[in-house]
Amino acid sequence: MTNLILHEYAPSGNCYKIRLTASLLGVPIERRGYDIMKGETRTPKFLGNVNANGRIPVLQIGDAFLPESNAACWWLAHGSALIPQDRFEQADVLRWMFWEQYNHEPNVATMRFWKAFVGEAGLTDAQRAMMPNKIAGGEAALSLMDEHLGDRTYFVGDRLSLADIILYPYTHVAEEGGFELVRYPAVQKWLQTVAAAPGYIEISA
Amino acid sequence: MTNLILHEYAPSGNCYKIRLTASLLGVPIERRGYDIMKGETRTPKFLGNVNANGRIPVLQIGDAFLPESNAACWWLAHGSALIPQDRFEQADVLRWMFWEQYNHEPNVATMRFWKAFVGEAGLTDAQRAMMPNKIAGGEAALSLMDEHLGDRTYFVGDRLSLADIILYPYTHVAEEGGFELVRYPAVQKWLQTVAAAPGYIEISA
Repeated sequence: MTNLILHEYAPSGNCYKIRLTASLLGVPIERRGYDIMKGETRTPKFLGNVNANGRIPVLQIGDAFLPESNAACWWLAHGSALIPQDRFEQADVLRWMFWEQYNHEPNVATMRFWKAFVGEAGLTDAQRAMMPNKIAGGEAALSLMDEHLGDRTYFVGDRLSLADIILYPYTHVAEEGGFELVRYPAVQKWLQTVAAAPGYIEISA
Repeated sequence: MTNLILHEYAPSGNCYKIRLTASLLGVPIERRGYDIMKGETRTPKFLGNVNANGRIPVLQIGDAFLPESNAACWWLAHGSALIPQDRFEQADVLRWMFWEQYNHEPNVATMRFWKAFVGEAGLTDAQRAMMPNKIAGGEAALSLMDEHLGDRTYFVGDRLSLADIILYPYTHVAEEGGFELVRYPAVQKWLQTVAAAPGYIEISA
């Protein structure tokens, strides 16, 4: 089997997505860490060899590099039950994956990064000005998830899919960004369902 | 064949992505317009029946609703040559599709919306404070595309794929948002290649 190396910053939810997908599938991956707080993904070596976009995670598959966490999860889950074969369900899984990158991550993950990693004292004025929008956007995202889940067990169809796996990481640590999960009971129940899946690992594993 | 209805705002690049994909595939779609400038996608009827997220485009497939432009393009292109079957190439197409939603659209499309649709006089102070970041982010996205394209003809592999189709709409009207395409010669050449594809239609079609 091709050697897989995850170029990552371990506490990042985007990196955890890939480790969680690999673990649920029973696929071993090697890990290589970079400290984004010290700019280790903006060095000429990283930009030239790993990702011109200067971001982690990147999944290295043999000699090929695949940036974007959700794309790496897709590669890992290729041919598995985590990607439905049904045409509508497959597109619906991607619908949640695109929604996560546009409506969820930029709000829920950014608030966590600002509050728990940078610290409020370290924010720029521009970042501080964006906070009310990020909070409102994050609350809207969590409300939409809660409404969608209602009495559903999973996001798409009646089984665990990549939609659940990629939405889990930043949602389950949303409180580190100041969001109150107790306001979203269907989300809380779904978090427990994902955490009970065989092969589940924690973000700190 | 199932009846397809595109719920849209015609000048939106995200809606044009879907029309362009359908046209390149020769698939007919019915169009239903909403004026987002008048809040027509935030009515209780739209939120309850079409998309709880209050956004267009939504592709209606029979009785089912599929939000997120890139997911709708994926559904349309299912089984076609626009989605590579090769495992790495398929994930690499998605890599560019996720990158577009995270790094390109929020900068390049938002600047166009603010400058050409809302008008600078109509922006809030918070939006005005975000403009320098949006401009820098858009320039970084266009530079990354230009560097990647280099002497490549297409984004992934040696043929047109969804990666090209979903990156085309907001890139080809980037100047409406104040970006100068003359600075990105490989992007300009690639825009011509996409526009020459059989079945191509313009955003105003």
